[in-house]
Amino acid sequence: MKISTNTVWHHASVTRDRRQQLNGHRSAAIWFTGLSGSGKSTLAHAVEERLFQMKCRTFVLDGDNVRHGLCGDLGFSESGRKENIRRIGEVVKLFVEAGTITLTAFISPFSADRLRARQLLESGDFFEVYCRCPLEVCESRDAKGIYQRARAGMIRDFTGISSPYEEPERPELVIDTGSTPLELCVDQVISHLHSRGIIPAPQ
Amino acid sequence: MKISTNTVWHHASVTRDRRQQLNGHRSAAIWFTGLSGSGKSTLAHAVEERLFQMKCRTFVLDGDNVRHGLCGDLGFSESGRKENIRRIGEVVKLFVEAGTITLTAFISPFSADRLRARQLLESGDFFEVYCRCPLEVCESRDAKGIYQRARAGMIRDFTGISSPYEEPERPELVIDTGSTPLELCVDQVISHLHSRGIIPAPQ
Repeated sequence: MKISTNTVWHHASVTRDRRQQLNGHRSAAIWFTGLSGSGKSTLAHAVEERLFQMKCRTFVLDGDNVRHGLCGDLGFSESGRKENIRRIGEVVKLFVEAGTITLTAFISPFSADRLRARQLLESGDFFEVYCRCPLEVCESRDAKGIYQRARAGMIRDFTGISSPYEEPERPELVIDTGSTPLELCVDQVISHLHSRGIIPAPQ
Repeated sequence: MKISTNTVWHHASVTRDRRQQLNGHRSAAIWFTGLSGSGKSTLAHAVEERLFQMKCRTFVLDGDNVRHGLCGDLGFSESGRKENIRRIGEVVKLFVEAGTITLTAFISPFSADRLRARQLLESGDFFEVYCRCPLEVCESRDAKGIYQRARAGMIRDFTGISSPYEEPERPELVIDTGSTPLELCVDQVISHLHSRGIIPAPQ
């Protein structure tokens, strides 16, 4: 077996460009951020459904498929949360390289962590989507009773209660998930992706 | 915005099955293992090229895109190498869920670590491919002079020299990368994937 020692050959083989060509759309990272209960995960999955119907290659990373797996060794301390977001950023980078429109749904409350994720990618590949929703609304939804437990002091460092949420200063998109119907929120994201050339314009 | 509190809905949305349907092939993990210089990465990229020409969705994880990124915080101690393989296994799981034929090219010398990666996936989704190549051949290739440095004691715990390589006992495929031309090695992998129903039979 002839082993090529030319590492350029290894990596030039199937490139992101060729994958994008095959897929018929560009890849990108769509980073949803917002309070617990602001609708990040619901919106990310609804956007994914719409993109999938357009035959786009997509994937959603959220607490459910990351927290028990890749980041199962991490706690919720400041350093644990920081490392959590760092790893997610690195995985997003791999998925984007693989040609996938990659949606993430994590509170990601700290600007510095979000900036670090952004900087892993090329400019134009990263879309920060702020799911803006008043704390009272998030708290009133409180499906799993976590705000209640946080208010009772049973959860340490809970974003919005006992730990800050740093609002995005220059997100690519702000969506008022507290007052906008889900399908209209999806429209806003899809239309932004059209306008930025990630997905082809509607026929 | 109506927030669904039905988490089943979140995840049932775009499933692996639907992605596989769209892609026209099943997803799977193809885990190449073998000594440094045995040709894992070359073979993985050559298999990927062939799959890509068949319009399959693929991705290769190897030292180049993982060691400086996701696992950039890890050293080469026993625990560092173990955690390295653990994270790779978790990322593979995500890519397989995303519908991708995912190829990994890591020495992964310890059976226990490979078994752990295998167990993250469903039976039938994981293909261990042993790149069997005599140490002398690997060492004679030594493009980057790493065996030479290992022999000189400059690299600690170097697989095959100062750290063991545990041969796979029941790999799905053994490929004699020391004596088989690259294109024939690729044929063997592709033909195995056909026979296991991962990719459609040739027209």
